[in-house]
Amino acid sequence: MSPQPLPSRPMHFKKIAIIGKPGAIGIAESLTQLAAFLKGAGIEVVLEAETASNIELPHVPAASADEIGRQADAAIVVGGDGTMLGIARRLAPFNVPLIGINQGRLGFMTDIPAEGMLPLLEEMLAGQMESEQRSLLEGVVIRDGVEIFHGLAFNDVVVARGAGSGMVELRVEVDGRFMYNQRSDGLIISTPTGSTAYALSAGGPLLHPSLSGMVLVPIAPHALSNRPIVLPDSCAIRVEVIAGRDCSINFDMQSLASLAHHDCILIRRSGHAATFLHPRGWSYYSTLREKLHWNEYPSVEGQLK
Amino acid sequence: MSPQPLPSRPMHFKKIAIIGKPGAIGIAESLTQLAAFLKGAGIEVVLEAETASNIELPHVPAASADEIGRQADAAIVVGGDGTMLGIARRLAPFNVPLIGINQGRLGFMTDIPAEGMLPLLEEMLAGQMESEQRSLLEGVVIRDGVEIFHGLAFNDVVVARGAGSGMVELRVEVDGRFMYNQRSDGLIISTPTGSTAYALSAGGPLLHPSLSGMVLVPIAPHALSNRPIVLPDSCAIRVEVIAGRDCSINFDMQSLASLAHHDCILIRRSGHAATFLHPRGWSYYSTLREKLHWNEYPSVEGQLK
Amino acid sequence: MSPQPLPSRPMHFKKIAIIGKPGAIGIAESLTQLAAFLKGAGIEVVLEAETASNIELPHVPAASADEIGRQADAAIVVGGDGTMLGIARRLAPFNVPLIGINQGRLGFMTDIPAEGMLPLLEEMLAGQMESEQRSLLEGVVIRDGVEIFHGLAFNDVVVARGAGSGMVELRVEVDGRFMYNQRSDGLIISTPTGSTAYALSAGGPLLHPSLSGMVLVPIAPHALSNRPIVLPDSCAIRVEVIAGRDCSINFDMQSLASLAHHDCILIRRSGHAATFLHPRGWSYYSTLREKLHWNEYPSVEGQLK
Amino acid sequence: MSPQPLPSRPMHFKKIAIIGKPGAIGIAESLTQLAAFLKGAGIEVVLEAETASNIELPHVPAASADEIGRQADAAIVVGGDGTMLGIARRLAPFNVPLIGINQGRLGFMTDIPAEGMLPLLEEMLAGQMESEQRSLLEGVVIRDGVEIFHGLAFNDVVVARGAGSGMVELRVEVDGRFMYNQRSDGLIISTPTGSTAYALSAGGPLLHPSLSGMVLVPIAPHALSNRPIVLPDSCAIRVEVIAGRDCSINFDMQSLASLAHHDCILIRRSGHAATFLHPRGWSYYSTLREKLHWNEYPSVEGQLK
Repeated sequence: MSPQPLPSRPMHFKKIAIIGKPGAIGIAESLTQLAAFLKGAGIEVVLEAETASNIELPHVPAASADEIGRQADAAIVVGGDGTMLGIARRLAPFNVPLIGINQGRLGFMTDIPAEGMLPLLEEMLAGQMESEQRSLLEGVVIRDGVEIFHGLAFNDVVVARGAGSGMVELRVEVDGRFMYNQRSDGLIISTPTGSTAYALSAGGPLLHPSLSGMVLVPIAPHALSNRPIVLPDSCAIRVEVIAGRDCSINFDMQSLASLAHHDCILIRRSGHAATFLHPRGWSYYSTLREKLHWNEYPSVEGQLK
Repeated sequence: MSPQPLPSRPMHFKKIAIIGKPGAIGIAESLTQLAAFLKGAGIEVVLEAETASNIELPHVPAASADEIGRQADAAIVVGGDGTMLGIARRLAPFNVPLIGINQGRLGFMTDIPAEGMLPLLEEMLAGQMESEQRSLLEGVVIRDGVEIFHGLAFNDVVVARGAGSGMVELRVEVDGRFMYNQRSDGLIISTPTGSTAYALSAGGPLLHPSLSGMVLVPIAPHALSNRPIVLPDSCAIRVEVIAGRDCSINFDMQSLASLAHHDCILIRRSGHAATFLHPRGWSYYSTLREKLHWNEYPSVEGQLK
Repeated sequence: MSPQPLPSRPMHFKKIAIIGKPGAIGIAESLTQLAAFLKGAGIEVVLEAETASNIELPHVPAASADEIGRQADAAIVVGGDGTMLGIARRLAPFNVPLIGINQGRLGFMTDIPAEGMLPLLEEMLAGQMESEQRSLLEGVVIRDGVEIFHGLAFNDVVVARGAGSGMVELRVEVDGRFMYNQRSDGLIISTPTGSTAYALSAGGPLLHPSLSGMVLVPIAPHALSNRPIVLPDSCAIRVEVIAGRDCSINFDMQSLASLAHHDCILIRRSGHAATFLHPRGWSYYSTLREKLHWNEYPSVEGQLK
Repeated sequence: MSPQPLPSRPMHFKKIAIIGKPGAIGIAESLTQLAAFLKGAGIEVVLEAETASNIELPHVPAASADEIGRQADAAIVVGGDGTMLGIARRLAPFNVPLIGINQGRLGFMTDIPAEGMLPLLEEMLAGQMESEQRSLLEGVVIRDGVEIFHGLAFNDVVVARGAGSGMVELRVEVDGRFMYNQRSDGLIISTPTGSTAYALSAGGPLLHPSLSGMVLVPIAPHALSNRPIVLPDSCAIRVEVIAGRDCSINFDMQSLASLAHHDCILIRRSGHAATFLHPRGWSYYSTLREKLHWNEYPSVEGQLK
C-alpha cells in the first residue's frame, strides 16, 4: 500500500468515465458495448472529450479530463499502458480510481482483456475487486533560481544526453547529501510502476508496486560499478547537469524539456497517487510471469547444466 | 529509518563492551588503547569472552555476548564487516547500539579507521553522532510440518545448490501468492545491509539502509528475464525446494543447514533490529563511492565516447 | 567455421548409428520409425549399446560408442541437448557427424523435431544439408606436478566453490601472462556452443558457433568491474586455486573432480572437433530467436517508452 | 594477431611524425623533448599540421595526415585515447605504426606515460618492442539504393535514437540471414578495441584485441533476453531502420550522419588495420587490471560472504 493512503472512496459507482486510446482505432465496438453495459446497470456514463471527437456513442455526453476528475467515481481506460499513463497523470490530482481494459496484448496496467470484460466488470461493480495505490513523481527544473518546468511522472523521470553527443555528466544529491557524479547516457528515476518499463531495459530491478521506494538507474554508465540504487520514496533528489550537449528531461517519455548546463532538477514523490482497480484475484506476479516469460526457459533441461 | 523504531536508548554510556575480530590478530594495541581511553572517560569496560581468550586487557573483565546484551549501553567492534555481522546477529535481541572500528580497509559497517579513532569516539561519547537502524531477516526451515532450523540474517538468507550438481528449482510465494518457479544456482534474499554484499555480486541493486524493503536476487538464473525484485519488508516469503541436489540454506554465510526436497523456508523481517552509531557527518553515499570506486572512471574522457 | 577444418567426410551414408537419451523413456516409437526409415533407404543401422539395453529394435545390432566412432558415417541422436553433449564428447576423437532429433522442446543442438523428422532426414540423406564444426575444450588438472585429471568439454569447463563455503579465489594466466586474481563463486570457460548454456545464465555474451574464440565468465564476481572476456581459441589458459573450500572442476556439468589449493588447471582448445549436420536452411539465429524469445516483447508499445 | 597480417614494415625508423592532442594544451614540453630526442637519434621528425598550428617546434617541418601516411615510418601520438582514435582512422589506409604517449591518466591505447617516455622510446627504437594489429570497421549508409555516407571506425559504429524520442526499431541481418528485430535505444557494433569503450558501458563483454571478432551490443533493449553477441569479423552486417525518430549513426562518436526510415547500414571489417607499437613486456591484461580496478575489491573479506 502507498505510504499515505488517501481516504477510500465509496465504491458505489454513480458515474463512470470512459477513455479510449489516442485515435481510438479499433475500439469503437468495445466502447459501445461498455457504455451499453454500464447504462444497463443504472450508471451514468461520460466519454472523455478527445475520445468523443473520434467516436460517437449515442446518448453519452463528452467530458474533459478535469470534469471527469471532479465528477466521475471511476474511469475505465480502453487501450494500452501508454493510454493509461497519459490519463493517469491528468487524473492524478483527483484520484479517480482507474480500470484498464486491453484490446491486444495484456498490459502491465491495462490488465483486463477486452474480450470477456463484461463479466469481470459486473463482478467489480458488485464490489468484488482489489484496489491498490500507485505513487507518482513530481519534478521541477530550476534555471538561475527560477522554476522553468514542472511535470508529473507515473513511470519515470529521465535526464538524458542528446543523440550522438557523448556523455552527460550529472551531479546527484539525495536529501542534501552528495551521492555521485555520474557520466552516462542518462539517469532514470523510476517509480515502482515504471520499474517494468524503461528502467528495466536499462538494467534496473523490479520494484513491487506497494514498495515505498523509487529507483535510480543509470543508462550505460561509464563507471562499471555504478549500479541501480533503490531509495525510500520520502527522499528528495537533486540532479544538476554538469556537462553534456543537448541534454533533456522527460516525464513518462510523454512530456519533454531541454536542459542547459547547471540546470537543477528536483524530484520527489508527488502528493498525488493513483488508485487502480482490478478484478478479484488479480496478481501482480501473474502479470510479471506472463509478460516477462518467467516460465519459458531458454533451453531444455539437459543443455543448461 | 526502520519502520518500527525501537524506543531510543539514553545515549549516556555507563558501560561499553569491546569485541575483537575472531583470533584477534593484530588488534591488541587498538584494544588496549580503546580500553584505556574509555576508562579514562569514566566508563565501565568489558571485553567479549572469546576476544578475552585471545587478548588480556588488565582490569577489564570478560563478558559473554548475552551479558553484553543485557548490560552494555554500546558495543565497540574492532575488526572487519564479518566480525560485525557475527556479533550483530547475537546482540540483535538486545538492540545494543554498535560502533565499528576498522583496522584495515574501510568497511561498509566498520566505518571508523583504527588510526584516529579516539578523537572521533570522544565526540561520539559527547553526543555528536548519528544513529540508524538496520533490519534483520529471520528464517525457518520446515520439514514435514516440523521446524528443523531457525536463523537470523543481517545481510542475507541464501538458498543454493551444491557444487557441481546442476540447478536448483525453487518455488517462491510471497504473501501466499505464487511468484515463480525459479531454476538457478540459488536465490539470495537480502536486507538493505546485505545489498552491498553477495547480492551485489550476483547483480542485485543497492538498497538504501533506510528503505523498508528486501530484495530477491537469483544467482545465475536460467530464465534470462528473471530479474531482481525488491519487495516491501512486510512481505512473508515462502521458498520450497522443488528439485536440485545437495541444496542448502545459509544465513550471512555464517550459519548453514542442508535442505531436502519439499523443505519449506519461511522468511520475514525479524522483530529485532540493530542500531549503528556513526560519527557526525557520516554519509552512506560516501562509503559507497569509496568502496565501489564510483569516481574512478575506467578510461580517459576521449576513449569512452 | 572451425579454425582447423578436418577433411570433409564423404557424405555418402552407408552406416548410421542411433543414440537415444539416457533411460530412453518415451522415444521407443521414434527410434523404431527411424530405424525402419534408414533401413528402407538401404543404410546399415546400429543402436548405441546403452540405448539398446533399454529398447530393443528388431534386427538392429548394438554397438559401443567406440565402435560407432570407428564405423559409423553419422550418428543420429534422439533426446535433448544433454544427450547430445554426452555423446558428442565421446565421439569427438572420431569426428562422426551428428544429427540431433528433439522429442520435446526445440534444443540448441537437437534442432529437428521428432514429429516430421522423416522428410527432413530424407532430404539430408540426399545431400541437402548444412554442415558446421564446433570446437571442444580440453582441460587437465595438475597437482604437485602430476596430471591427476583430464577432461573434454563441449560446452564449458567450470571451476567453482563448494556450497555454503564463501568465495573461491582463482589466479588466471593466459599464454603465460597474468590476467587477474578473481574472487567469485567460480569461473566458466566456455566454447561458443556453451555460450547459450551456463555462461549465458551467469551473464556471458553469445558467441557465434563459427567464432574462433572462447569466453571466460565469472560467476557472481566480487569485483563489480569484472566482466566476461572473449579470447582467441588459440589461447592457453591456466587457472590456479588460491583460496576457497570444497572447490571443484566440472566438464559440461557431467564429469567432475575435486580441487585442492594450488592445483593448476590448464585449458585449451581440443584438437578434436564435432561436426553437426542440419537440414538445409537451418539458421543459428532462428534457433536463438525462438529459444531466447527475442521477438516477444515484455510489454506493449505504449508502456516501455 | 589480426587475421590478415600485413607485411611487417622494416622497423628501422628514418622518419617519425609527432601528433599532439587537439588544442595541444599542456603538451608543449613533451613535444619539444620528444623532437629533440628523436633528432638526437638521427631520425627525421615532422609535426602534424594541426598540432603545428598550435605549437612551434624549431626546425621541425609540418606535415599533413596524408603526408605522414605516405612518408613516416611511425607516428607518436601525445594525448589521450581520443586523440589516438582520430589519427588512427586517418592513418589507417597507410598502416603507419602508432606509438601512444599519455600525459595524464593511463589510456587503453596511449599506454606510455609522458614522464619517463624517453628511456622506453630509446629501447623501442633499438627494436625492443611489441607490435600488434587492430582491426577497423567500415560502414556505409544506403538510402534508396544510393550510398549517402561512408565512415571508418576504430572503436564502434553506433546506430541510435534521438533524445526523448522513444525507441528505435532495427532489423539486423548477418551474412544475409535475419538475426532479429531489435527495439532499444540503439545498437553498438564494436571492434575488440572498442569493447573497452561505449560497448562496455552498455553491458558488452571484453574482446581480446587479437580476437577475429566483433560484438553487437544493444543499448537498453526492450527484450530482456537480448544479449550481446560476438560474431566472426568476416561477417557482413546489415542494419535497417524500421522505426524511431531522429535516428543517427556515428563512427567512434566522432563522425555522424542522420538516418531516415528504411535507410540501410552495411558494416564489415575494413581492409585496413592499425599497427600499435608497445614497449617490450607490455600487457593488455595489465592495462585492463589498472583501468577496470580488477584488484580493488568493493568490500573487506568478511563482508562479502
